[in-house]
Amino acid sequence: MRKVIVVGIGPGNYENMTIRADAALRHCDVIIGYHVYVELVKERYPGKEYITTPMTKEVDRCRMALETALTGKMVAMVCSGDSGIYGMASLIYELRGEAREPEVEVIPGLTSACSGASLLGAPLTHDFAVISLSDRLTPWDKIEKRLLSAAAADLSIVLYNPASHGRPDHLRNACKILLRKLPKNRICGICRNIGRAGEMAAVLTLEELENANVDMFCTVFIGNAQTSVIDGKMITPRGYRNV
Amino acid sequence: MRKVIVVGIGPGNYENMTIRADAALRHCDVIIGYHVYVELVKERYPGKEYITTPMTKEVDRCRMALETALTGKMVAMVCSGDSGIYGMASLIYELRGEAREPEVEVIPGLTSACSGASLLGAPLTHDFAVISLSDRLTPWDKIEKRLLSAAAADLSIVLYNPASHGRPDHLRNACKILLRKLPKNRICGICRNIGRAGEMAAVLTLEELENANVDMFCTVFIGNAQTSVIDGKMITPRGYRNV
Repeated sequence: MRKVIVVGIGPGNYENMTIRADAALRHCDVIIGYHVYVELVKERYPGKEYITTPMTKEVDRCRMALETALTGKMVAMVCSGDSGIYGMASLIYELRGEAREPEVEVIPGLTSACSGASLLGAPLTHDFAVISLSDRLTPWDKIEKRLLSAAAADLSIVLYNPASHGRPDHLRNACKILLRKLPKNRICGICRNIGRAGEMAAVLTLEELENANVDMFCTVFIGNAQTSVIDGKMITPRGYRNV
Repeated sequence: MRKVIVVGIGPGNYENMTIRADAALRHCDVIIGYHVYVELVKERYPGKEYITTPMTKEVDRCRMALETALTGKMVAMVCSGDSGIYGMASLIYELRGEAREPEVEVIPGLTSACSGASLLGAPLTHDFAVISLSDRLTPWDKIEKRLLSAAAADLSIVLYNPASHGRPDHLRNACKILLRKLPKNRICGICRNIGRAGEMAAVLTLEELENANVDMFCTVFIGNAQTSVIDGKMITPRGYRNV
């Protein structure tokens, strides 16, 4: 088949995968990805060739996917959430360059902005920004500027990668920055292990968020000025007029 | 069942629905929604009670969903794309208020930021903002401020509702605003009828976008400073460092 399919598998459970992602994983020859994501799908799609690489080895992983496809195989590169948003689709295209082979197909998946929001209530009804707190590939001053701009424009904000082993204080630092523009009682939310064992969602204030414990399995939501709590849910209305 | 399930059906085709959304539509008693979306799913889920309302009657539609559920039925409220992002989940929670009945469940779906991006290549690999150009519920000066803030912070931008019958010039006006901060040759993309008959995706510059024809079935993407065209695809890299 000489094809790489970049598959967004959603948060991790089968029910939140698309029909199309499921079909691609059933029909492929090889499943390749970060080992945690390959483990998530291995049981449901047995009898494939599985290739895993560690977390920071994305370039190696994509090169292996392209090379394996060129041997005549249909290769599914699994990404958690969406295949594009902080996913591998761009790197696959960049590494393939202007070569026409192997064929590349991108299958979108539920990103945690969507899957996490559904657990919290409806925090992203209106305009929002998605910002990663990982400074591995992005200078921190750029992240800081984006946080301030989004807050000043009253966008709701979704924070990806709020913490990791190497950077436990990123969320606290982001909250300190946001508190320059936003009130302490701004409604926020945390989701952890969306669609996996130990799934949780909590609604809290920005002041409380500053001292919250988060890890790399969390996604964080900051409401806009209209966001409120209704029956325990984090709710952002559709706009600024009641129609 | 006395339950309202707010179902994000994705862009419109069956393959891009989640397993969970499909199951909800198979098991519900009533399907309610804007008539275009109900038409999209009616054929695949026959034998249900169907309730449709016009586009601007969202409050009526949600009230009908809650009232119908209280008669003992399982009601699926269908939203195109995601159930939360510019969807009906918030209004359902707002109208139910602190009442505990009917039960509400939110099923996320592929929003066009994700489904459209997969057609264009990988335009949203890094941080981005989602902004609607509809000024029906939001003052235009707020929209303008958000566009400028997102551009100044080098966020990629996804524009929802770039035009409608009542506001054909919104995209042109938005481009004029963005051109105050961004270069004319900034890489952009347009998707139309994602996952439906007549699906198309085109890559163009911001200057060309200013004069492009769009309608309410389009989603528009503005790249960040790193976005380039590779083999005809719109590609935003993962960050600002080559790792």
